Amino acid sequence: MHSQEELLDFIKNGHKQYLPHVSIDPVIFGYSDQKLKILLLKWKGLEGWGLPGGYIKREEPISQAANRILEERTGLKNVFLQQFYTFGDSHYRTHEQSLKEITQEQGEDILKGSWLFERTLSISYFSLVDHSKVNVTTDFFTYDYHWFGIDEIPELLFEQNEVVDKALTTLRLQLYHQPIGSNLLPEKFTLPEIHSLYETILDKKLDQRNFLRKMMTLGIIKKLDEQRSIGAHRSPFLYQFEKENYEEALKQGIIHAN
Amino acid sequence: MHSQEELLDFIKNGHKQYLPHVSIDPVIFGYSDQKLKILLLKWKGLEGWGLPGGYIKREEPISQAANRILEERTGLKNVFLQQFYTFGDSHYRTHEQSLKEITQEQGEDILKGSWLFERTLSISYFSLVDHSKVNVTTDFFTYDYHWFGIDEIPELLFEQNEVVDKALTTLRLQLYHQPIGSNLLPEKFTLPEIHSLYETILDKKLDQRNFLRKMMTLGIIKKLDEQRSIGAHRSPFLYQFEKENYEEALKQGIIHAN
Repeated sequence: MHSQEELLDFIKNGHKQYLPHVSIDPVIFGYSDQKLKILLLKWKGLEGWGLPGGYIKREEPISQAANRILEERTGLKNVFLQQFYTFGDSHYRTHEQSLKEITQEQGEDILKGSWLFERTLSISYFSLVDHSKVNVTTDFFTYDYHWFGIDEIPELLFEQNEVVDKALTTLRLQLYHQPIGSNLLPEKFTLPEIHSLYETILDKKLDQRNFLRKMMTLGIIKKLDEQRSIGAHRSPFLYQFEKENYEEALKQGIIHAN
Repeated sequence: MHSQEELLDFIKNGHKQYLPHVSIDPVIFGYSDQKLKILLLKWKGLEGWGLPGGYIKREEPISQAANRILEERTGLKNVFLQQFYTFGDSHYRTHEQSLKEITQEQGEDILKGSWLFERTLSISYFSLVDHSKVNVTTDFFTYDYHWFGIDEIPELLFEQNEVVDKALTTLRLQLYHQPIGSNLLPEKFTLPEIHSLYETILDKKLDQRNFLRKMMTLGIIKKLDEQRSIGAHRSPFLYQFEKENYEEALKQGIIHAN
């Protein structure tokens, strides 16, 4: 947790360290036990739920900022994290109410003209992590967290339901074109394992045989000459992601546009 | 053109009207005579080429800002314009050299601490227009323009070649999933017309029969019970975009993810 002193310094002087007017707000999807969830933090003062977020340091490349913020909130490094949209139409974050609550004892003087009350555009990323491996850390403005199933997301602060919806749409659209699931499966996995992951993310049944054909045709996975022994008469073949293949394909635009 | 007075006011006071630290930089693709081009402006002082751009007004929704900037540069309204990425890794625009040149007579005092020297993230959009209909207007920092063929783009200022490359990749990836070409064709068009547009954008030959089948399967276009008479024995059938169809499909994520 942060001290009150740190918080007051952040309110008064944060803009010397961070760029004002832009925040990074990752939508963190968690997959575990065949369920897709999303990480939300509970805000002080506002008593509602919102996405974890953070600011970009003045000299920090934004992709580095996004990775840093994800690590600060979840403890995870090197996971799939992708920018998908910058929101700035109806999406105005203001910390005013929350800060009034937090700084009650200090009176309101300290809040006057704080950079945190300025209009803030939100550069949004999404990530997909194994949520059983996550250690969540709240930030200055939040005091609790919860992994919500994607079918039970409450009304969010700062009109962030729009952000979550677009993240989910993008995740599903890109599922066949990016190694999105690669950090949720063992390096070598069985067909049922990846099949179940895809069914969960897309929230629908996929015929296993068609699914396999599609994955092989797209060149996303390859079958190994190796089996996993899971019983006397059961030793399914193992598969592996073919990262290079579809990174190349994506670059050349041949996956969609052929 | 802008007066020197306006320019000096923009340098000194622009941040009162516009958000600092973020600009909108549209990659404007022009299609005409079966050629795909891109609009570049020539910068004062820097003597190089760069994308047209602009800033977001303090209370202006960013999609509105993007449309305004496109209209200011091209005179066009209601054309396809889509956000595709926010650059902020290596992409630091600075107006310093350019401004020194422009404000030579004023000395350098006026430039001190100007908001235009601050690090600026670039929210990038792409657009596709009929470039024969465009009236280009340069901005404060530029004095000439040219439509470059996409195979003859020079090295750009502010590392913007990366922006152009990503715009082109995105345009090609989304060509079958969005009504991207709809403002480049007559409302009712022939198969050769749309076929030629797609071949130009993708920069490759497409078998006409397969192309038609794909467009019909995706539900992007529909065949009308109507022909265009273009000669004694030539009256090709007409087609029309099915906007609603694939907007719906895109929303549900069924175009890619089935």
